[in-house]
Amino acid sequence: MKHLRSIEELDAAGILSLLELTDHMVEINARPIPKVPALRGKNVVNIFFEDSTRTRLSFETAAKRLSADVMTFSVGTSSVNKGESLRDTIETVQAMGVDAFVIRHKSSGVPWQISNWTDASVINAGDGWHQHPTQALLDCYTIRQALGRKGGFEGLRIAIVGDIKHSRVARSDVQAFAALGAHVTLVAPPTLLPPSIAGWPVETSQDLDSLVGKVDVLYLLRMQRERMSEALIPSLREYTDRFGLTADRARRLGDSTLVMHPGPMNRGVEIAVDPSELPGNVIIQQVANGVAVRMAVLFQLLGQGDSLA
Amino acid sequence: MKHLRSIEELDAAGILSLLELTDHMVEINARPIPKVPALRGKNVVNIFFEDSTRTRLSFETAAKRLSADVMTFSVGTSSVNKGESLRDTIETVQAMGVDAFVIRHKSSGVPWQISNWTDASVINAGDGWHQHPTQALLDCYTIRQALGRKGGFEGLRIAIVGDIKHSRVARSDVQAFAALGAHVTLVAPPTLLPPSIAGWPVETSQDLDSLVGKVDVLYLLRMQRERMSEALIPSLREYTDRFGLTADRARRLGDSTLVMHPGPMNRGVEIAVDPSELPGNVIIQQVANGVAVRMAVLFQLLGQGDSLA
Amino acid sequence: MKHLRSIEELDAAGILSLLELTDHMVEINARPIPKVPALRGKNVVNIFFEDSTRTRLSFETAAKRLSADVMTFSVGTSSVNKGESLRDTIETVQAMGVDAFVIRHKSSGVPWQISNWTDASVINAGDGWHQHPTQALLDCYTIRQALGRKGGFEGLRIAIVGDIKHSRVARSDVQAFAALGAHVTLVAPPTLLPPSIAGWPVETSQDLDSLVGKVDVLYLLRMQRERMSEALIPSLREYTDRFGLTADRARRLGDSTLVMHPGPMNRGVEIAVDPSELPGNVIIQQVANGVAVRMAVLFQLLGQGDSLA
Repeated sequence: MKHLRSIEELDAAGILSLLELTDHMVEINARPIPKVPALRGKNVVNIFFEDSTRTRLSFETAAKRLSADVMTFSVGTSSVNKGESLRDTIETVQAMGVDAFVIRHKSSGVPWQISNWTDASVINAGDGWHQHPTQALLDCYTIRQALGRKGGFEGLRIAIVGDIKHSRVARSDVQAFAALGAHVTLVAPPTLLPPSIAGWPVETSQDLDSLVGKVDVLYLLRMQRERMSEALIPSLREYTDRFGLTADRARRLGDSTLVMHPGPMNRGVEIAVDPSELPGNVIIQQVANGVAVRMAVLFQLLGQGDSLA
Repeated sequence: MKHLRSIEELDAAGILSLLELTDHMVEINARPIPKVPALRGKNVVNIFFEDSTRTRLSFETAAKRLSADVMTFSVGTSSVNKGESLRDTIETVQAMGVDAFVIRHKSSGVPWQISNWTDASVINAGDGWHQHPTQALLDCYTIRQALGRKGGFEGLRIAIVGDIKHSRVARSDVQAFAALGAHVTLVAPPTLLPPSIAGWPVETSQDLDSLVGKVDVLYLLRMQRERMSEALIPSLREYTDRFGLTADRARRLGDSTLVMHPGPMNRGVEIAVDPSELPGNVIIQQVANGVAVRMAVLFQLLGQGDSLA
Repeated sequence: MKHLRSIEELDAAGILSLLELTDHMVEINARPIPKVPALRGKNVVNIFFEDSTRTRLSFETAAKRLSADVMTFSVGTSSVNKGESLRDTIETVQAMGVDAFVIRHKSSGVPWQISNWTDASVINAGDGWHQHPTQALLDCYTIRQALGRKGGFEGLRIAIVGDIKHSRVARSDVQAFAALGAHVTLVAPPTLLPPSIAGWPVETSQDLDSLVGKVDVLYLLRMQRERMSEALIPSLREYTDRFGLTADRARRLGDSTLVMHPGPMNRGVEIAVDPSELPGNVIIQQVANGVAVRMAVLFQLLGQGDSLA
């Protein structure tokens, strides 16, 4: 495994093996000094063409806990603005000695392009609407941890609710959940489903109420306010009424139904209750597991077999 | 001691004990390799909602000298701008594993709110006009060092001059200086005094000249140019004439009168002489002591008793 | 050697000695863990008044490989914007404990001013059109490495092509190349030559074609698009025709002619072929050597004689 550009680069065994490695990272993170020298001297460079403090901090924390050096390449102030091509930028930074690039970009496919131009590993931290593989891995880890599903998700019912069309999280999650054997239902108004969903290993529904109480995991996507001005939804209030986690729906959730969200939450829109009052809320665990999963990915790509011992 | 949100969280003994710990940090900073492993694996996150390169660099240097990891959360590029609540932001970053938040915010009280939402320690690096406790500690340390006052400030006369109303430095300094026994006089035009000063352990004066030569410490506050357009002062020139450290007043200062300023200085306004020519100038020592004091605070909040040995 | 503000602070022996030290750094960079503790506890502060991701990352990587701490002072958000003088800013940051300042500034001479105000070493990372000494050193190292010229550049023919007038790279390179014995020709339209070139150890030419195939090194400068609106060149197309590395000229280059560029390249302007297809292309090696040269400079200024052993 050289890169992690898409969750499709992993089969079920590959996902499960990374989740096992994550167990080890969770153990490290619980130590009084949560730091190991496993990646000392490795150089991880974050190139975020789209801002994401949350994801950048998570990767940065993960790299530091493995003693890698981390540098952030701020695109706003870079040669990209002086007309340099992306390829020249990458080749230049690579020449300084980079072991892994963590890339976020608004265009789908950029991590693949970049991996053609560099010897370093490329980790996709989100490309357009396309992929966000470490999010899918942390979501799998969180479900596995909360439901004790070490062997896979066979028979598990997961609903992903919201703006599927514009969501790289949904695309990556669908692939990972299905690879592990879960039964996934996408719940969204037709305007927020991708134009062609044929071939996706999912069912679709527009009736959230019929699923509440019947699924093991309710995964809410962030509803971007811009979608209203784009006329993809009539209003945020109507969206909440039909697709939000309202107090009424929260009451009908089983105590064991996990409630998940990739953050940042739009409170009052996709989630109209305080998630901290829900028994199955694991939203904060998702964030915590994100650091451990990214440690596992960095170690898998850059580490030596026995250097965690 | 879990947080340092206000200087009021410390009594005189608590302040003196931190100043003694600072002595130890000053000794570390004088070593050829000024770095100890005391906070290895601890994660300090700076969240500066208001810019302050000076204070951020000081905390960052302090954390690195104790071998803590430091990350800066740049609010300009964060989820705060995507409509996420401050509480969700803090809980999210906290979930990545934070031991201390260093917070600067334009609103008074934010560090208290934040400490309700996190298990991490909260250090107030300035909240509105309210508090800046590490500034007060570094000011106390600088006076103690320069005047050999290890036991406290009993009988010491300190004048704080300038825009008291809008100054968190003044509020914190008054409390710390008074707790240690100093006699504090605030010198300002009435428009730059807080509306209600009743209960403050101070005297007030509008006559700087009557104090020059009689005080042990002359503490000049930064005069923000905006105050003129707000009509709080008639003009910067008149402000300097009445409340600035002019050449004439500098001549009348005793050689042993300390001259202090929290920076950044507005030369020609509150200070119309070159401070480096004043015998009692300790402005640069204040900055240097700031690193040592912040090391002491970080160690007090996050360290183990014997790990400095 | 206390500062590196200009290449003129080094004579030929000084340059050659730094290039030998760079050999050692290249060896360190080739190790599985490219990191040595030589500068542990040293504090390097980047102050970039002009943006340059490329140069900043290079210095940051160099410092981290020697285990120094690095902090970046972002001028956009600093007290410089609150009206503080540059001198007060430098003295303040210095007081926090700085061993070296790496300075980039749009005005010539600023690194000299700064070195008057601080005990720290000052490294000029580019001041206006004036100097960029580490660029000259990495260019020398790249030529020495590619052509096996350990003893100097006696008899070597180097053409520097393009906007000499506005180029700190050209000024520094001319001095370094000439100090090592090379014969330098500047190739540019008269509008892009400095007003007075008397005393420079160079020839000038407007005829690139007569030199192609006869020089050992073809050094192309970045052509800034602004020069056209300033009417210094008639058009970018005509510039390329007369001074660019076109396919035709590339064919007439000897296989052993080195092609160099300080980056970022304006493809299609000063270089209208893909440099990766040229046998003598060393543009990427320049970047890689930049890290090693900056390690050598930092170690020379801050290190102890035997701490690399």
